Amino acid sequence: MGIDDVRSAIARRTDVHLDWLRTLCRIPGVSSRRYGIDASVQAIRQLIEEIGGKVQVLQMADANPVIFAEFDGDGERTLLFYNHYDIQPAEPLDEWTVPPFEGVVEAGLFYARGAADNKGDLVSRLAAIDAWRQARGRLPCRVKFLIEGEEEIGSPSLPDYLRTYRDLFQADACIWKYGNRDPAGRLEVGLGLKGLLYVELEVEIASSDLHSGYGALVEAASNRLVRALATLRDGRGQVLIPGFYDVVRPPGSEVRASLEALPFEDEILRARYGIRRFLRDRIRTGALATLLLEPTCTFCGIESGHTGEGMRTILPKQAKAKVEFRLVPDQDPEVLVRQLRHHLDMKGFPDVQIRVLATQRPHQTPINHEFVDTVKRAAEEETGREVVLYPTLQYSGRMYELAEYLRLPVVSVGVGYWDRRAHAPNENIRLADFDETVRLMARLLQMFGEEG
Amino acid sequence: MGIDDVRSAIARRTDVHLDWLRTLCRIPGVSSRRYGIDASVQAIRQLIEEIGGKVQVLQMADANPVIFAEFDGDGERTLLFYNHYDIQPAEPLDEWTVPPFEGVVEAGLFYARGAADNKGDLVSRLAAIDAWRQARGRLPCRVKFLIEGEEEIGSPSLPDYLRTYRDLFQADACIWKYGNRDPAGRLEVGLGLKGLLYVELEVEIASSDLHSGYGALVEAASNRLVRALATLRDGRGQVLIPGFYDVVRPPGSEVRASLEALPFEDEILRARYGIRRFLRDRIRTGALATLLLEPTCTFCGIESGHTGEGMRTILPKQAKAKVEFRLVPDQDPEVLVRQLRHHLDMKGFPDVQIRVLATQRPHQTPINHEFVDTVKRAAEEETGREVVLYPTLQYSGRMYELAEYLRLPVVSVGVGYWDRRAHAPNENIRLADFDETVRLMARLLQMFGEEG
Repeated sequence: MGIDDVRSAIARRTDVHLDWLRTLCRIPGVSSRRYGIDASVQAIRQLIEEIGGKVQVLQMADANPVIFAEFDGDGERTLLFYNHYDIQPAEPLDEWTVPPFEGVVEAGLFYARGAADNKGDLVSRLAAIDAWRQARGRLPCRVKFLIEGEEEIGSPSLPDYLRTYRDLFQADACIWKYGNRDPAGRLEVGLGLKGLLYVELEVEIASSDLHSGYGALVEAASNRLVRALATLRDGRGQVLIPGFYDVVRPPGSEVRASLEALPFEDEILRARYGIRRFLRDRIRTGALATLLLEPTCTFCGIESGHTGEGMRTILPKQAKAKVEFRLVPDQDPEVLVRQLRHHLDMKGFPDVQIRVLATQRPHQTPINHEFVDTVKRAAEEETGREVVLYPTLQYSGRMYELAEYLRLPVVSVGVGYWDRRAHAPNENIRLADFDETVRLMARLLQMFGEEG
Repeated sequence: MGIDDVRSAIARRTDVHLDWLRTLCRIPGVSSRRYGIDASVQAIRQLIEEIGGKVQVLQMADANPVIFAEFDGDGERTLLFYNHYDIQPAEPLDEWTVPPFEGVVEAGLFYARGAADNKGDLVSRLAAIDAWRQARGRLPCRVKFLIEGEEEIGSPSLPDYLRTYRDLFQADACIWKYGNRDPAGRLEVGLGLKGLLYVELEVEIASSDLHSGYGALVEAASNRLVRALATLRDGRGQVLIPGFYDVVRPPGSEVRASLEALPFEDEILRARYGIRRFLRDRIRTGALATLLLEPTCTFCGIESGHTGEGMRTILPKQAKAKVEFRLVPDQDPEVLVRQLRHHLDMKGFPDVQIRVLATQRPHQTPINHEFVDTVKRAAEEETGREVVLYPTLQYSGRMYELAEYLRLPVVSVGVGYWDRRAHAPNENIRLADFDETVRLMARLLQMFGEEG
């Protein structure tokens, strides 16, 4: 059965849907600063109730609330949407060309912190539901939402919520929070995520800063931490911690072949982000395969001593670094913490302290699952363009627990595109992508209901 | 001729002299922030004029002013005192146990930022002059002062001042800004300073921060700078830049022997500063010889990416480090800049930018100069304790230009002691050391005049 009436409703309601997005983007909820959480929850609750959803705000101790929503619909099958209402901070503010919390539209782009990650996705899904209700008065399948508020700090409480409210969240399949279009316009459908270990390393060599005249006798905390960090990764990007690669599961040959066949648009990235160089010399089998299939070690932040203008001749007592590892199947972040501790001890750095800020396990939904096919067909039919299945994305998240605790396939598709600038200044989505995604979601609801 | 009358004047005037010190310490003049400069200059000018000195405030373009002062006296010989009115910032303020700009006296200690480095020294010299005038109405020799305002940022303008006002500053010998007493109470007389190269290293890998998901393809600025820094110095403290040690002049055997004979009170330093470990394994010939005779490489500050609380999954576009080298004869900071550039290029880091913030050449006054002997005898006679000649101190400064442009011997002796905490919280001097130093200076004026 055609859904032209639903598509018409989408077209008619575009301004309303963009107003919803603008409303949400004006309420920054920064989980890392415990700021704007309640306001974000209330705004989303109101929006969902406005389009007929039943909302429960779940609240566990020492955690940001999770919004659970439920929509009645035809058939027995339930589709679960996973999203989050928290965002990254907008800093550095001076690098934004528009105000980050207003939802400015310019040249077909909608700018705001959170627009791409992932309020645009949340609203695209609510918009599809709204359109079905406008056109038909009801939905073609049952729908649930799990909207958490700690995604940007590693979703520490999500496993507890999933265990505690397992029955509430029960569904037949899950659509993950976001999606991407590459520079050639291909829509990416993601079947997996990398794992994550995010730690803070800290070393203290004295109880106060010393005059740097003591440098011949005392190693500064800064010097010491630099030496420790330098043992973690080489210039080609290879991680040097013994055992790190031992349990990496080689991707299936068809997965690797499919990724290697895809071009990696490095020139476009180079031009857009001003990237000076890629780690090309380690790329034997295509940049995309490297990006998606290789684990990483990135120093997300380092701080020690005098960081202001000019010179201070001090020998810093303390140094800190934020170190992030992105993991691939079957690397386990808990095992890596122990390997890292042992490695630092063996290299002569037993005094470098490790504080774990987040752990996430890698996960991949099997490429031959029927739900993957449903999503791919819905996407192809609605966009009329090539759709590419990605066995995994370069990002991380709690897909593992979602899939394992609820025993369902998880697939990621959404509004984003290659230059969406998530986590960076000038985050944005394209209005055309937003519209296309609302239609895609409307079509998916229908196909998911019909195939049940 | 005895100087009991001068000593009596010193004892009588102690409270006045401490008030002078307190007055100066209440006016913070922070050269690195261009703050409080005029107020500092005016306060010192007033003080000097009060005790009969003629003051000229010299002002060159784009420089903090230099205070030149002159006192008439007996004989033909002129003693030049070198001091500075600028201070290090007082941060971190929360680590001070007393307010840093009040001159609090507690348990025989006078606390203030600048008390030890080097307002206590400046006032001790003015106090000695005051005491001679109180007792005799005139001085036993001619005296000049050169008091600059950029010492804490590497004295960038001092060479120009010295060249331009060479005739004004002309003298027969110079007493450098400060001194020290070791934990055993031995007074140190310093004959030299280390050289200095202070640079900022900066690397930028993109025009904006990236999502850290790109870590498999792009090396973060933080990772890159860590790898570059790690090539500069090894875990034993040895600098790894080719050519770095080539021109190091071996100290005379009597210098090394005298330093090796002196104990290094590492346990006291360990207890006081909470130093966890010394670079002991590289110390073959005594810690003091290492401290004074070895060049260093210290990372005074490092900053990149996310340095706040919690986690942000970014790949930093930029990273910066403040890197300080302390040099020994005959290392030349200008040559080292070129060696560092070449070294970074050869290691694969042509994109790591070097910005030179300060250069100073090492200098040592010959240990057998007659002025060295005069100072040593004045110190021994007035303190009644052992005096140790240090061929060099572990600190840096523009002693080279002072000695070379004015062609005079330079010797450093002053009010400080081993726990004076210069450049650190709770900077202080001992009142007993201050008193002793005023007497020492008064005696030195006499001996210098008589021996002319």
